Amino acid sequence: MKVKVAINGYGTIGKRVADAVSLQDDMEVVGVTKTRPTVEALHARERGYPLYAAKEEAIEGFENAGMKIEGALEDLLQRADVVVDCSPGKVGATYKPLYEKAGVKAIFQGGEKHEVAGVSFNAYANYEEAWGRRFVRVVSCNTTALVRSLYPLKKEVGVEEVQAVMIRRAADPWDSSKGPINAIEPSLKLPSHHGPDVQTVIPDLNIYTVAVKVPTTIMHLHSIIVKLPKEVGEEEILSLWERYPRISFVSGALGVKSTAKVMEMARDMLRPRGDMYETIIWRDAVKIVNRTLYYFQAVHQESDVVPENIDAIRSMFEMADKEESIRKTDKTLGVGWTLS
Amino acid sequence: MKVKVAINGYGTIGKRVADAVSLQDDMEVVGVTKTRPTVEALHARERGYPLYAAKEEAIEGFENAGMKIEGALEDLLQRADVVVDCSPGKVGATYKPLYEKAGVKAIFQGGEKHEVAGVSFNAYANYEEAWGRRFVRVVSCNTTALVRSLYPLKKEVGVEEVQAVMIRRAADPWDSSKGPINAIEPSLKLPSHHGPDVQTVIPDLNIYTVAVKVPTTIMHLHSIIVKLPKEVGEEEILSLWERYPRISFVSGALGVKSTAKVMEMARDMLRPRGDMYETIIWRDAVKIVNRTLYYFQAVHQESDVVPENIDAIRSMFEMADKEESIRKTDKTLGVGWTLS
Amino acid sequence: MKVKVAINGYGTIGKRVADAVSLQDDMEVVGVTKTRPTVEALHARERGYPLYAAKEEAIEGFENAGMKIEGALEDLLQRADVVVDCSPGKVGATYKPLYEKAGVKAIFQGGEKHEVAGVSFNAYANYEEAWGRRFVRVVSCNTTALVRSLYPLKKEVGVEEVQAVMIRRAADPWDSSKGPINAIEPSLKLPSHHGPDVQTVIPDLNIYTVAVKVPTTIMHLHSIIVKLPKEVGEEEILSLWERYPRISFVSGALGVKSTAKVMEMARDMLRPRGDMYETIIWRDAVKIVNRTLYYFQAVHQESDVVPENIDAIRSMFEMADKEESIRKTDKTLGVGWTLS
Amino acid sequence: MKVKVAINGYGTIGKRVADAVSLQDDMEVVGVTKTRPTVEALHARERGYPLYAAKEEAIEGFENAGMKIEGALEDLLQRADVVVDCSPGKVGATYKPLYEKAGVKAIFQGGEKHEVAGVSFNAYANYEEAWGRRFVRVVSCNTTALVRSLYPLKKEVGVEEVQAVMIRRAADPWDSSKGPINAIEPSLKLPSHHGPDVQTVIPDLNIYTVAVKVPTTIMHLHSIIVKLPKEVGEEEILSLWERYPRISFVSGALGVKSTAKVMEMARDMLRPRGDMYETIIWRDAVKIVNRTLYYFQAVHQESDVVPENIDAIRSMFEMADKEESIRKTDKTLGVGWTLS
Repeated sequence: MKVKVAINGYGTIGKRVADAVSLQDDMEVVGVTKTRPTVEALHARERGYPLYAAKEEAIEGFENAGMKIEGALEDLLQRADVVVDCSPGKVGATYKPLYEKAGVKAIFQGGEKHEVAGVSFNAYANYEEAWGRRFVRVVSCNTTALVRSLYPLKKEVGVEEVQAVMIRRAADPWDSSKGPINAIEPSLKLPSHHGPDVQTVIPDLNIYTVAVKVPTTIMHLHSIIVKLPKEVGEEEILSLWERYPRISFVSGALGVKSTAKVMEMARDMLRPRGDMYETIIWRDAVKIVNRTLYYFQAVHQESDVVPENIDAIRSMFEMADKEESIRKTDKTLGVGWTLS
Repeated sequence: MKVKVAINGYGTIGKRVADAVSLQDDMEVVGVTKTRPTVEALHARERGYPLYAAKEEAIEGFENAGMKIEGALEDLLQRADVVVDCSPGKVGATYKPLYEKAGVKAIFQGGEKHEVAGVSFNAYANYEEAWGRRFVRVVSCNTTALVRSLYPLKKEVGVEEVQAVMIRRAADPWDSSKGPINAIEPSLKLPSHHGPDVQTVIPDLNIYTVAVKVPTTIMHLHSIIVKLPKEVGEEEILSLWERYPRISFVSGALGVKSTAKVMEMARDMLRPRGDMYETIIWRDAVKIVNRTLYYFQAVHQESDVVPENIDAIRSMFEMADKEESIRKTDKTLGVGWTLS
Repeated sequence: MKVKVAINGYGTIGKRVADAVSLQDDMEVVGVTKTRPTVEALHARERGYPLYAAKEEAIEGFENAGMKIEGALEDLLQRADVVVDCSPGKVGATYKPLYEKAGVKAIFQGGEKHEVAGVSFNAYANYEEAWGRRFVRVVSCNTTALVRSLYPLKKEVGVEEVQAVMIRRAADPWDSSKGPINAIEPSLKLPSHHGPDVQTVIPDLNIYTVAVKVPTTIMHLHSIIVKLPKEVGEEEILSLWERYPRISFVSGALGVKSTAKVMEMARDMLRPRGDMYETIIWRDAVKIVNRTLYYFQAVHQESDVVPENIDAIRSMFEMADKEESIRKTDKTLGVGWTLS
Repeated sequence: MKVKVAINGYGTIGKRVADAVSLQDDMEVVGVTKTRPTVEALHARERGYPLYAAKEEAIEGFENAGMKIEGALEDLLQRADVVVDCSPGKVGATYKPLYEKAGVKAIFQGGEKHEVAGVSFNAYANYEEAWGRRFVRVVSCNTTALVRSLYPLKKEVGVEEVQAVMIRRAADPWDSSKGPINAIEPSLKLPSHHGPDVQTVIPDLNIYTVAVKVPTTIMHLHSIIVKLPKEVGEEEILSLWERYPRISFVSGALGVKSTAKVMEMARDMLRPRGDMYETIIWRDAVKIVNRTLYYFQAVHQESDVVPENIDAIRSMFEMADKEESIRKTDKTLGVGWTLS
C-alpha cells in the first residue's frame, strides 16, 4: 500500500516534490493543482499527474483553454492520504481548514509560520518529532541549509554562537517580474527571520542572522561565522560534514568560484532541472582562526527542501526510521555526490 | 562500424556534442580534451569519456592534480575518424594544420571564419553540401536560428528582404567574468556579422542584421522583419514552420512571456542540462501587415547547434541522407516537442 | 508675471520638471505633491518647493512623520495657473475632473492616453498645436526620442517607412522592485504602442514598432531602420540632425560603446542628477545601404521629456513662439552639447 | 602659494580628485594624464585641465585624434609639487621611480600595497601620520568606509572584535566589460584583504573580513558585527557617529531600502556626478544584542576616498591641522548632510 500524495500548487516546489514522490516505492502522486491553465499545467499532464483546479471557480478557465481537468482541490483531497501544500507563502495556512475537514494529513512549507503545524522539520535534526503527526512544516530553503551544516557542528563539536549573513537571490530563474536589477537591499529587520526559524528546529542554538537581497536568480550564499567551544582543526570539521550526504563540497582550485559554476555542475551531472539538492560548501574556504570557524555555503532555493518533504511524509506515516528514510530518499534522488 | 569522434574542447558546446554523439548508434566518442584540470574534466571522466590534454605541455598539470590522462590531442587524433573542434572562437583555425597532419576530418564551429572549411552548414538548408567533405563549419547559434526560420520561408513563400535585430545574451550562465551588469551595448559595426554569415549558408538571401548586447545569460532574442513577395496569412506561415521540427512554438497566453520562461520549459521537460535545441517562436506574436511578417524567436545559445553537428558528421561520412539523418538526430535528442 | 506651475507627483519626472521650471524666468513652482512622507518629500522641502499632500487623507501621514505640509492638492490648484501632472501612468487621467473643476490648465505625461488631452506634444514637431490649449499631453520618453530623430528626416528628406525595435530598460535606477533580473521579455502585442503613439504627433508617418524589455535601468536603446525616398549620404543625414540641438552625438571611436558610457558622459558634464536630455545617436553607426538608413539612438527615460514639458507650458500660455521657447529652454538646461 | 597638484590617471578616482582639488583655495590642478584619446580626455579639456599623455609613446595617438596635448607625464611632473596617482590598481607602484626622480611628493590609492608609501591614510584616524611625508597611500573605498565607522567606536567605546561581511559591487557604472551578470562570487581567500588593510590604519583593531562579489554597479554594502566591551545603547552609538560628518544616515522608514535609493538621494541633492562621499548607515538597522552591535553601511566606491585625498595633501604639505583640513574639505565638497 503506497501513501497517496496530493500536491496543492504545482509550482517551483510542488513540481519537484511531485517528481520526487514518483521516484519512491512507498508513495505515489494522486494529483496536483493549478490555479490557471498555464504551460505548467500542460507539463503536469505530460508527466501523468492528474490535474485539479486549486479552486472550484477556476475549473471553467481550464475548460475554456481546452485542458482536461479532474475536478477541484476538494475532490483531490478525497483521494489522498496526505497533501503537500506548495502554495505561495502565507497562502498555505488559509487551506488548513480544508485539509482538516477532508481528514488528510498535511505538510506545509517554510513560507508558513511554525504555528500552522507545530513541528518544523529537518530530516537530520528532528526526524522523530514528525513521527505520526498530522501537520508538519518543512522549513524554508535557507533554514534547511543552515540546519544541515550547523546541526552536525552542534552535535559533534558544540557551538557557542553563530553569526550568519545570508546573501539572497532576489527571484527564481523563471520569474521575470521581481527585481532588483541593479541594487543591494539589506533586510532592515534584525535579526532576519532565519535565525529564529532555525531555532524552531534546533531550539537551543545561539544564532543571529542578517539578510541581504542581491540581483541574481541563482542560489543563496551564506557567509557563516561559528564560535566553537574548543580548538578543532579545519580537516576535522570537513570530515565531520562528509558524513552527512546532504552536504557536498566544491573547490575553487578546480574552477568553481561562483554560484553560477555550482549550478553548472548540477547541469553537468544531468540532474533533472539542473537541481542541486545538497548544501554546497567551498572546501578551500573553510577556515578556523582562534576557535572561530568561517565558511561559505550555497543553497539552491528551488530544490534543497525536496528530499526533506519526502522524509517528512515517511515520518508522519511511521513508514521508516530516520536513517532508512534518508538513505532511501537520497538513493532515489541521487543525493550525495562526490567528484574525484 | 561506428564513426570515431574526438571532441577538442570539452566546454559549453563540446560537452553537449559529446553527449549527443553518445546517443547515436552510428558514432562514438573516442576522447575529449581539456586545457586544465578543472571540474569539467572530472565530469568528462565520470561520463566515461577518455580525457586528453589539449596541449602536450598541459599533461603535467593534470598529473599534478591527480587526474588520470590518456595523452595529448595528437594521441587522441590517432584514434579518431573526425574531430569536432569546440575550442574557443578563432582558436579552432589554429588547430587545422594538426588535423590535416593527422589525416582526420574536422568540424569547426561558428566562431571560425567560413574559409577555414569552405562549407558552412545547416541541416535543413544545405545538408548535401557537406557530403563527403573533409572540413565543414557548423554556423553559430544565432546564424543557425536565423537559417532555421528563414530557409523554410524562402523556399516555400519567397523572401524579398530580411531585417533582423538580434538582442544577444552577454555571457553563458556559468561565466561570471563577462558583463555588462547594467548597460546595453549596440554592435557599432553595421551590418553585424550575422547577416553575411547567413549568406554563407543561403547565398541569395537578402538579409541585413543588427546586434545589441544585453545583460542576460539566458538565450538570444531575435526580432525579425521579413518582406514577403505576396499576400500570405499568419496561419499559413505557422503551418509551414510546423513542418520543421527544429522550430517549436510557445504562447504568451499560456504564460510564456520571457526567455526565462522558455528555459524553464526545457527544465520542466527534463531536458539534459535544461537545453532547448529548437528555435522557439512566439505563436501569438507572429504578425503580417502589408506583406511584412514580424516575429520573435528565442535561441538557446548553448545547445541549438548540437543537432547540426551530429548531422554534419553523417553528411561528411555519407552515412545517411538528409531526411534520415535529421530524423535520427531528432529522435535521439527528443527534438521537436509540442505541448497540448 | 510668471506662470504659476503646480507639480502633481514629485517623482522621477515631477522632480525634474520642478527644477526645470525653477530655471525659467517666465514661470515658477508654486507647489508639489507627494502621497507619502518619504525622503523625496524632504528633498522637495530642501529645494524650497511648497509641499502638499496628493490626497486630503494623506495629510495626517505627513504630520505624524513630523513633516510640515501646506495642504492638499485642491489647495495647491487654487494657487496655480497650470498643473503638470506627473502621477503614475493611467492615474493622471483620474485627476482630470479635479483640474477642470479648479479651472487650471493641465499637462499630462505619456502614460496617459492621447484622448485625455486631445493634443500630443513634441516641441520640434507640433509646438503650434498646443497654442492656447487647456489640456496637452507630452508624449513618453520613447515617443519623444522617436519623434526627435524622425521628424527632421521626414521634413527634410522624406520617409517611406520606419521599423523601430526598441530595447527598453526594465526599471528606473532607484526602483529595486521591478525585474527581470535575468531574462529578455518581448512585448507580444504587435505593433507596440509606440508606433501609433508617434502618429499622434506626426499623423502621416508610416511607422511600425516592436518592443523588448531587458534587465537594465540605464536608457532605452532604439535600433531604427528607415526607408528613404531617394539616395542620400550618411554625412547629409548627420548634418541635418546637427541642426536640432535636442539630438547629440557620441562615437564608439572615443570609447562610448554602451548606454552606461553615455550616462557617464552626463555625469562628467556635471548635469544635475546625471541627466541626458538629448536623444543620443552613435555617429559611427549611422549607415545607409540601398536607400535604407540604419541608426541607433539611446534615450534617457528619466529626463528627455523635461524640456518638452517646459515648451508645452509656453505654448499653452502663448508666451513665446516655437523657436524662442526651444532656445530659452535649451539655454537654461544646457541642452545641445558638443564635445570636440 | 597654492600647492600644484598633478593627477596621473584621469579615470573614476582621478577625475573626482581633480574636481575636488579645484574647489580648494590652497591647491590647484596643474594637469591630468590619459593613456588614450577618449571622451574622458575631451571632458578634461572642457574642464580646463591641461592634458598630458601618461606615456611618451601615447602622444602620437592624441595628435592623430586631433586632440591638443601638453606633453607627457614627465613634463607634467616638472610643473607639480605633488602627484595624485590614480592609475589602475598595481600600476601605481610602477610609477614610483618616476615620481622619485622628478622630486615630487606622491599619493597612491588603495589598489597599491601599504609598502609603496609606508603610511596608509584616513583623515579621522591618522591624519598626523602623513604630516610632512613624501609618500602616502589613501586606503581603498571599502577600507575607508570601515575605518570611518569603526575608528569612532574603538576610540570612544572600545571594540573587542569586528566581523565584517562585505557585499561588493562587481563593476563601476560605466564599465560594461565586467561581470557577473547572474552569480554570486565569494572571495575564497580568508580573511579578505580588507581586514589586514584596516590594520594598516588602525593597527590594534581586532578585525576579520569576508568579501562576496554580486552583480551590481551601485555601492558596496557592509554587514558589520562588533563585539563591544561594555553595555551601550543604540542611541549612544548613533550620537557618537553623528559627531563625524563623513558618516550620514538614512532610514528605511522614509523609503530608503536599497543602495539604489541611496544613490538616488545623491542625485536629488544635486551632488556632482551623483556622488556620495559619506559612509551611509541605516539608522533603523543599528541594533545591539548582548553587547554585540549590528549595522549596515553603504559605500560609494567611486567617490568616498575623494575627501581623504584632499586631506592627505594638506597633511603632507603641513598646510593645516586635522580639524581644519577636514572642515575645509567637507565645506567645499558639501560633505555631511542631514535631511530633516
